[in-house]
Amino acid sequence: MVRTSEEQKVRKANARGGAGEVEMRLLVNGAEELYGKGKLFNHMVMEPGVSVGLHAHDGDNEIYYILTGTGEYNDNGTIVTVKAGDVCICNDGEIHALINTGSEVMEFIALVVNS
Amino acid sequence: MVRTSEEQKVRKANARGGAGEVEMRLLVNGAEELYGKGKLFNHMVMEPGVSVGLHAHDGDNEIYYILTGTGEYNDNGTIVTVKAGDVCICNDGEIHALINTGSEVMEFIALVVNS
Repeated sequence: MVRTSEEQKVRKANARGGAGEVEMRLLVNGAEELYGKGKLFNHMVMEPGVSVGLHAHDGDNEIYYILTGTGEYNDNGTIVTVKAGDVCICNDGEIHALINTGSEVMEFIALVVNS
Repeated sequence: MVRTSEEQKVRKANARGGAGEVEMRLLVNGAEELYGKGKLFNHMVMEPGVSVGLHAHDGDNEIYYILTGTGEYNDNGTIVTVKAGDVCICNDGEIHALINTGSEVMEFIALVVNS
């Protein structure tokens, strides 16, 4: 089955208490396309200054894979500068956040897998 | 935890019997970082003419998310032209293949989830 991501764009203001509005391209139609093994698989787009706020994972992990841009990733309390090509894993029981601190659009893949 | 994908590049010739050599950037260190719920989460890079050969999924699905380029996707026997932004899902029990038929590099995310 093939479909275009154009069909599945949503915008979310203040994601997890973050700044601005994140564009989310939903790559799967909910958990059933992940056989109930995960919660989301999204292409995320953040303009400069936009962020996903600090939040905890309980019962799952979340993996961010940075496609474009630069930012600051809160890695369970430690701030790390991240760029395209970096993989950020928030394990079950940890906290994380991500802000686009650069001048370009930040794009990343987000995947949540149940623990 | 943050790491660069530079650490995890591998090249695979004739992937699934396909043509040429696919560059695979392994975004996770095996199934354990997917809590055993999936088998791989890769950033794939194929030069023009390179392909992943036709193969079946048995016990899992595979999702391709096209980041750049154009190609032909074999969707369980039907050939579909695909481009950046398209999502291709091969469900458990189905077959699929992907070839870069364009003049640019084709990049895509591949995710395998156990059924």
